[in-house]
Amino acid sequence: MLALRVDQKKISVKEVERPERADEALVRVVLSGICNTDLEIARGYAGFNGTIGHEFVGVREDSGERVVGEINAGCGECDLCRSGDSRHCATRTVLGIHGRDGAHAEFLQLPSVNLLPVPDNVPDEHAVFTEPLAAACGILERATINSGDRVAVIGDGKLGLLCAQVIALTGASLVLVGKHASNLRIAERRGIETTSPRLAAKRKREFHVVVEASGSAKGFGLALELLRPRGQLVLKSTFHGKTELDAAPIVVDEISIVGSRCGRFAPALDLLKNKAIDVDSLISEEYPLSKGVHAMRRAGTSGVLKVFLRP
Amino acid sequence: MLALRVDQKKISVKEVERPERADEALVRVVLSGICNTDLEIARGYAGFNGTIGHEFVGVREDSGERVVGEINAGCGECDLCRSGDSRHCATRTVLGIHGRDGAHAEFLQLPSVNLLPVPDNVPDEHAVFTEPLAAACGILERATINSGDRVAVIGDGKLGLLCAQVIALTGASLVLVGKHASNLRIAERRGIETTSPRLAAKRKREFHVVVEASGSAKGFGLALELLRPRGQLVLKSTFHGKTELDAAPIVVDEISIVGSRCGRFAPALDLLKNKAIDVDSLISEEYPLSKGVHAMRRAGTSGVLKVFLRP
Repeated sequence: MLALRVDQKKISVKEVERPERADEALVRVVLSGICNTDLEIARGYAGFNGTIGHEFVGVREDSGERVVGEINAGCGECDLCRSGDSRHCATRTVLGIHGRDGAHAEFLQLPSVNLLPVPDNVPDEHAVFTEPLAAACGILERATINSGDRVAVIGDGKLGLLCAQVIALTGASLVLVGKHASNLRIAERRGIETTSPRLAAKRKREFHVVVEASGSAKGFGLALELLRPRGQLVLKSTFHGKTELDAAPIVVDEISIVGSRCGRFAPALDLLKNKAIDVDSLISEEYPLSKGVHAMRRAGTSGVLKVFLRP
Repeated sequence: MLALRVDQKKISVKEVERPERADEALVRVVLSGICNTDLEIARGYAGFNGTIGHEFVGVREDSGERVVGEINAGCGECDLCRSGDSRHCATRTVLGIHGRDGAHAEFLQLPSVNLLPVPDNVPDEHAVFTEPLAAACGILERATINSGDRVAVIGDGKLGLLCAQVIALTGASLVLVGKHASNLRIAERRGIETTSPRLAAKRKREFHVVVEASGSAKGFGLALELLRPRGQLVLKSTFHGKTELDAAPIVVDEISIVGSRCGRFAPALDLLKNKAIDVDSLISEEYPLSKGVHAMRRAGTSGVLKVFLRP
């Protein structure tokens, strides 16, 4: 079968063996989405070599059921796994990220417990957003957002636009900070206030919660400036390399910095089913899997949002 | 009156005017304690010039009542002040730290609302620990510590020893990490497990909560290594300058970094009244206020814990 592979920071589409573990479900991939993490892995992040991709919708070969899949596959035996949450299992594998081939391929495998059926009224092009939308919903697991709070989301890329839409549903007073007029317009059409980083920087100490989804060290610095005392900074995206941290303002203003990675799929599927989130506007381009290398380049181009691969 | 002053990073004991604001209570200082923050202010931290010192016990000139005092004096009108918590009032002054002369003096002034009576059974030498003990109790306002949790406190100085004793009362499984055998023995006498930074570094990903009270960037790095996924790092002390922060592990392991500064006085006075905390072992030396410059030097000497000044 065809698969989009990373090997020592080189990407290529290759013919590889179809996966055939007897203890896991085999899924024929219908559509996969390119995430910024895929681009980072191609640059060497996480040291992963293999088939990349972790956003997908597919069909179970055994039952014919249309499914999406939680990407963390736990050991099934530790306390975390037994409590039904494998996201931090110490020996987990992660689809297309760590120890497990991923979704930019004709077939993938995951444990059956990871797979969730897709409601009939959710088209493939929406279902493939379940994973990143779940990651956006994960913010609400990690931060307390009350309806009277002022919240800023920094970053108007795919992730920032999903985070902003999820937070808007809480009733909080929200502003999305970004540099790309066409992306900001997607949020504005949903009634979300937007602003530029330059204008946002004038609103120091105004926000109860700031979500950093720009993936830049500058975004991190701006986020700290925007927070009120006892405010919460949600780190939604990693940024490349290290940034300088001055502990004094964190202690004096009693700031919280909260990391947030993966969210649960069920709330995200509910939102898609209820058409509560505009994902159509986030779709930029679609390529056949065989053009995966080109698609990756397009996904890394400024102004391009979600790029799909179809096996 | 005499006062220990900082002026452009120079410290000296000087004769100054007695404070005489009609709208605040006048307190004759009986005993004051030197905090590491005093040493940092003398090096230029916070840009404060004036009388330093914020740990004290004294006697109100108007009523003769023995009192301690919350160090943040708010505007009295903002939402925070009206809710009874001036610690983050945007226009607050802070005793001996920001915009207000401090406690290493014969007299000080604070708003009446800041002053709390000292229970009769608490001697002056214990009461003067109310402020740093309140700061240690403040951890419990900022982090969730359950009785089954594993907690590490990094730093065996005055603050670390108070933090460890407060956390021990929660029933959590606790270890104090430090380099000074004589200081660690103070905790051991209270039944607290202790270890060295070298041995602690072998216990990676073991702890639900780590309190950084060493004031060093190394302590911050160690704290991150010791935390489990979704663990909480409480930053209790600022460290000098900046440290490098790699956001990836914070996001991937969904760590929280939580700043903690001042705590409420009432719980700390209760602990002192009930003799729940050993503060006697933390007292190293006492000097007359006139020897304040020498006392500051002693307080900055390795192995010396609390140094008192008596006007």
